[in-house]
Amino acid sequence: MKGLLVRREDILRRLRSWRLKMLTVVGSGICRDHLTDRAKKIIERAEVVYGSKKALDNVREFIKGKFKVMKGFSEAEYSEIVEESKRKNVVVVSTGDPMVAGLGTKFHAEVEPGISSVQVALAKLGVDLCDVVVMNAHSKEVNLREIMHFLKFRSVLILANRRFDIKKLGELKVVLLENMCMNERVREGLASEMELSSDYTIIFIRR
Amino acid sequence: MKGLLVRREDILRRLRSWRLKMLTVVGSGICRDHLTDRAKKIIERAEVVYGSKKALDNVREFIKGKFKVMKGFSEAEYSEIVEESKRKNVVVVSTGDPMVAGLGTKFHAEVEPGISSVQVALAKLGVDLCDVVVMNAHSKEVNLREIMHFLKFRSVLILANRRFDIKKLGELKVVLLENMCMNERVREGLASEMELSSDYTIIFIRR
Repeated sequence: MKGLLVRREDILRRLRSWRLKMLTVVGSGICRDHLTDRAKKIIERAEVVYGSKKALDNVREFIKGKFKVMKGFSEAEYSEIVEESKRKNVVVVSTGDPMVAGLGTKFHAEVEPGISSVQVALAKLGVDLCDVVVMNAHSKEVNLREIMHFLKFRSVLILANRRFDIKKLGELKVVLLENMCMNERVREGLASEMELSSDYTIIFIRR
Repeated sequence: MKGLLVRREDILRRLRSWRLKMLTVVGSGICRDHLTDRAKKIIERAEVVYGSKKALDNVREFIKGKFKVMKGFSEAEYSEIVEESKRKNVVVVSTGDPMVAGLGTKFHAEVEPGISSVQVALAKLGVDLCDVVVMNAHSKEVNLREIMHFLKFRSVLILANRRFDIKKLGELKVVLLENMCMNERVREGLASEMELSSDYTIIFIRR
């Protein structure tokens, strides 16, 4: 009888762990051929794959089930995805890495990393991640006081879109990396003399 | 005649760009199947592949040329590799990402990113890179004053080995992630009550 109980518990544990893995957020990387074999396998096993149009385009050849284009990126949309993941094996594809200003923090889910724009930028700049602080200006205001605070100890790398007011960085010398792995452009100069023209901009300020 | 000059310049430019790409540092990721297709192609094209025994084991099936195990990780060894790259297409494989406490800053070379232990840790912790500061205790002393300074604004993630004196973090609450993608272990508690037992430890301190 004890043996049977143990086996039953074992089965339940497996079911639970299987259940918990029904929702996975997968990073697709940002350049062509950035996808890892781990990510490919997870996408191939999915019954439904969600993502922005861009993210789905990156991984299209590995989708065996259905796919659905995300549009709102709202709490309501996230809730619907969670609901569907109670019945089906669902994957959400996040461009770059889900834990770098991505969709990884929007769900309680397994997360599979991908190559982020931050990594590609650091590779081009020749700077180690342990020498920078990464700031996300897409989702919240990045203020100059905080930037200056970090610059005492570290270089600063800001993820920005064209709405970011670069003039507020004044006479700081910056490197702008725009549209990486697309129509890439790298510029260098004083912040006060720069204009942002892309929603995929990385601003690097050397300490 | 002008046409000929242009063509010659074009050829020289191509030769130069080819020459500059003779040394590439490639990230192999840290878990099985982390290697990207981009990284695989670069390794397959190499005449000589350098790396630690661990790094070479990760990518062995893609090496078509010779391979050489790095041992010293000294300036002398780096210079020898640079010398060889003047005659041959040389790749240095760095476990994880070359720009995360890796070999990327040791050479003036092209760098191809890989999935780092930091990314795997953040995926497990459910924390975004833009909410942390990453510190490298492998290569230099990490002092408590600096940690406390960053903790005012961010969570802190420290890359450490077993020589790191965790007691100096006192009553701070920490999460230890050890040997990721190997015989993984995750522990939580007060720093003063912890002991480090692995040279592949990540210490996470939530803000």
